Amino acid sequence: MQTEARDHGGNLDAAMRRHGGDMTRWIDLSTGINPVPYPVPHLEPRAFTALPTRGDMEALRAAAAVCYDSRAHVTPMAGAQAVIQAVPHLARPGDARVLGPTYNEHTAALGACGWRVAEVTTPEALAGADCAVVVNPNNPDGARYDPARLRALASQVGLLVVDESFVDPDPELSLAPMLHRGPENVIVMRSFGKFYGLAGLRLGFALSGAEIAARLADLAGPWPVSGPAIEVARAALGDRDWQRETSARLARDAARLDALALRAGWSLVGGTPLFRTYATPDAAAAQEALAQHHIWSRVFPYAPGWLRLGLAGSQDDWDRLSAALG
Amino acid sequence: MQTEARDHGGNLDAAMRRHGGDMTRWIDLSTGINPVPYPVPHLEPRAFTALPTRGDMEALRAAAAVCYDSRAHVTPMAGAQAVIQAVPHLARPGDARVLGPTYNEHTAALGACGWRVAEVTTPEALAGADCAVVVNPNNPDGARYDPARLRALASQVGLLVVDESFVDPDPELSLAPMLHRGPENVIVMRSFGKFYGLAGLRLGFALSGAEIAARLADLAGPWPVSGPAIEVARAALGDRDWQRETSARLARDAARLDALALRAGWSLVGGTPLFRTYATPDAAAAQEALAQHHIWSRVFPYAPGWLRLGLAGSQDDWDRLSAALG
Repeated sequence: MQTEARDHGGNLDAAMRRHGGDMTRWIDLSTGINPVPYPVPHLEPRAFTALPTRGDMEALRAAAAVCYDSRAHVTPMAGAQAVIQAVPHLARPGDARVLGPTYNEHTAALGACGWRVAEVTTPEALAGADCAVVVNPNNPDGARYDPARLRALASQVGLLVVDESFVDPDPELSLAPMLHRGPENVIVMRSFGKFYGLAGLRLGFALSGAEIAARLADLAGPWPVSGPAIEVARAALGDRDWQRETSARLARDAARLDALALRAGWSLVGGTPLFRTYATPDAAAAQEALAQHHIWSRVFPYAPGWLRLGLAGSQDDWDRLSAALG
Repeated sequence: MQTEARDHGGNLDAAMRRHGGDMTRWIDLSTGINPVPYPVPHLEPRAFTALPTRGDMEALRAAAAVCYDSRAHVTPMAGAQAVIQAVPHLARPGDARVLGPTYNEHTAALGACGWRVAEVTTPEALAGADCAVVVNPNNPDGARYDPARLRALASQVGLLVVDESFVDPDPELSLAPMLHRGPENVIVMRSFGKFYGLAGLRLGFALSGAEIAARLADLAGPWPVSGPAIEVARAALGDRDWQRETSARLARDAARLDALALRAGWSLVGGTPLFRTYATPDAAAAQEALAQHHIWSRVFPYAPGWLRLGLAGSQDDWDRLSAALG
């Protein structure tokens, strides 16, 4: 199946088969998921047993709107990935342009639905596209785009998709607070799982005008997200103290990782507080060397020198990473 | 939004606004969800924090295949509803026929994607459709169709969708064990949440041939279901003892509900062990009378006499229901 064959981080089990060691032995740094998750509160049985009600969904939407400082329409979906899967169905297939290199699911999802997809390398080259996709900050190189400039770009494209999956620690980059009263052809995507370290819950949000929100809701159906996801997210999205402390810790830990990588002779390509991408002499060899230490990383078929690392969590994991890179 | 406006069970919060009383006061019998859920085991933190791996998904598929006694390809999705949402995208829109009256999401999802949808009242009238939908056993009238006869129907339609959301207590009705080596144009849908009483987890399955499975996987994306759903379902789908005891209890409790309804002067239209539909002189009045007792039920716009009730769970809930109907 095409989806199965696509290249992803997070595919630790394949690495385990090759290098041995069970889940408890490995440190998975192949994703950009915060390794110190929001503490899952006790979940009421109802979160598991009952269909989420409209009231549950409304409360989730409200929590996201406050957290993201947005008065746009909020559509909860089963992960930012679910928004990516829905986007190709929002308009008749035409010419899509993706600002790249970037997360490969955008191109894959659009292409699978009959869009002609081209990768462009500057925001200016997006003008004229029927659908334009920008990841801000970008994965894996950390490129950052001024949200006001992106907003202005909306008038030059059919549909503008801004994937803000990694923006939480850098809220000043987000277009979400500017989406009030248009433009109506913009979708901002937010991931819940990455910043809150709870990717298993499968939750993300689309922020948009009313018309796109209605079509996304039709595509998603009445119960797109789980009860546990709703209950955990309502707590997490409202926990300003945890968010502030987490952003500060992620910034410190990103600097710590950069220092280890520099010592190993690598240079920083770019990144966000949730992941760092380094230029290495041979990324495949570096990945293999880390895997010998049961540390899993991410390489990119289009950039043979690039290695991406997420942050380690526990002190023990940092020590192992330091030793492996030393 | 269209989805929000559609008529569903499970919408207890609207009833609460009208009649007062919080969630703890109400007995929600408006759905066909087993009120005695599979006991949620302790969940490892990884279920919440990590993206499900291919290995996790493969194990879930294997557990479903064994439980459903099927060698077809299994595609896990975020609820049977997610399969319903995907079906319209599996073929170019054409003439769809739905054997009805039945669960309204099939017609709604197909219609929203440009299919012309007609409701027909006999299986024979499905022949010639580009897409034919049968719910077996049917919701809400409990009509049952011979799976071998449905299998034969596949050669007379473009795509045959068999929604088996309520078939778990009646496995002899399932087409799943017959899907080996074709026909290739059949999708069997299974719900996890209803029989296991865990609708909040959002999990369902499509059983099909390889080609449809590949297209469903493309539509669903790489991480369509949550870690908690995978972990709970792997345990529940393999628990034969719980399944056997639950099927027996549901049968007993369905008979118990029928006895109460008969005493109230209603007659059985039909049902499954998970819900019962009764003919009443005035279903809206009956629903209102039950709501005064904080018991929520389901009525149907197309059948003003029909009232559907799910089963009560605790003895206390049965006593309250008995008093309300008495």
